[in-house]
Amino acid sequence: MQNAEIFELRAIGRVESPLRSLDAAPRQADEGAPEAWLIFDEDVRDALGSVRVGTELILLTWLDRAQRDVLVVHPRGDVTRPPEGVFTTRSPHRPNPVGLHRVRVIAVDGLRIRVDHLEALDGTPIVDLKPVLDEDISAR
Amino acid sequence: MQNAEIFELRAIGRVESPLRSLDAAPRQADEGAPEAWLIFDEDVRDALGSVRVGTELILLTWLDRAQRDVLVVHPRGDVTRPPEGVFTTRSPHRPNPVGLHRVRVIAVDGLRIRVDHLEALDGTPIVDLKPVLDEDISAR
Repeated sequence: MQNAEIFELRAIGRVESPLRSLDAAPRQADEGAPEAWLIFDEDVRDALGSVRVGTELILLTWLDRAQRDVLVVHPRGDVTRPPEGVFTTRSPHRPNPVGLHRVRVIAVDGLRIRVDHLEALDGTPIVDLKPVLDEDISAR
Repeated sequence: MQNAEIFELRAIGRVESPLRSLDAAPRQADEGAPEAWLIFDEDVRDALGSVRVGTELILLTWLDRAQRDVLVVHPRGDVTRPPEGVFTTRSPHRPNPVGLHRVRVIAVDGLRIRVDHLEALDGTPIVDLKPVLDEDISAR
């Protein structure tokens, strides 16, 4: 490896969801993913201070059940589709399995934030939360 | 800490950019950020296979010059604005300083990918690359 540098990502909370297995999980959030709670750790309470109902956020998770040595997949697991490099797919299997999820806040209860739909499994570690910016979503 | 769990993120490449200092960097990509090269490691070559000129991607970086113990900031560093929890800002300073950048590919040369504008500093480690999905950018 040219860059063997390793960074330490730490869980700052967990997803609480009815989704318990990879088989049950939709591939994308807009394909019937359920509401979920984001349960944050006490030590990041102050970072959450401005999250309100209606806020749109980008949630980053650590897809802890993914395989990190997979570089090529059939998109959406469909073997009739030609294999593709993982960087042009949303496969959870990739060198650094960080999940990216656009969510809307529907309830806030202290360290617990409820979001409208999330395709991450129950227990998935949370690593970051960011606002959605215009430049993220505007047409180019 | 409730969740002391740590995950190992590894650099899979580096940003090559004329931006050399935090003072020079625009706060957002749409505020005059320059073109940049993404230089990937040999061992992720296969994951890049389907990246083409014109592809829109979400680049995740590790903002290695950020402070991880900052939970509250003045948005955009403007002290006249009330302090806000970092999870509703794009401050690089946050518990897990993962940078999120929407970019468009303007050239591909093997392991080197040129993107249209990027506010990350020269040398910033790359950790992931994902396609932009409709659900990421559609109005809600």
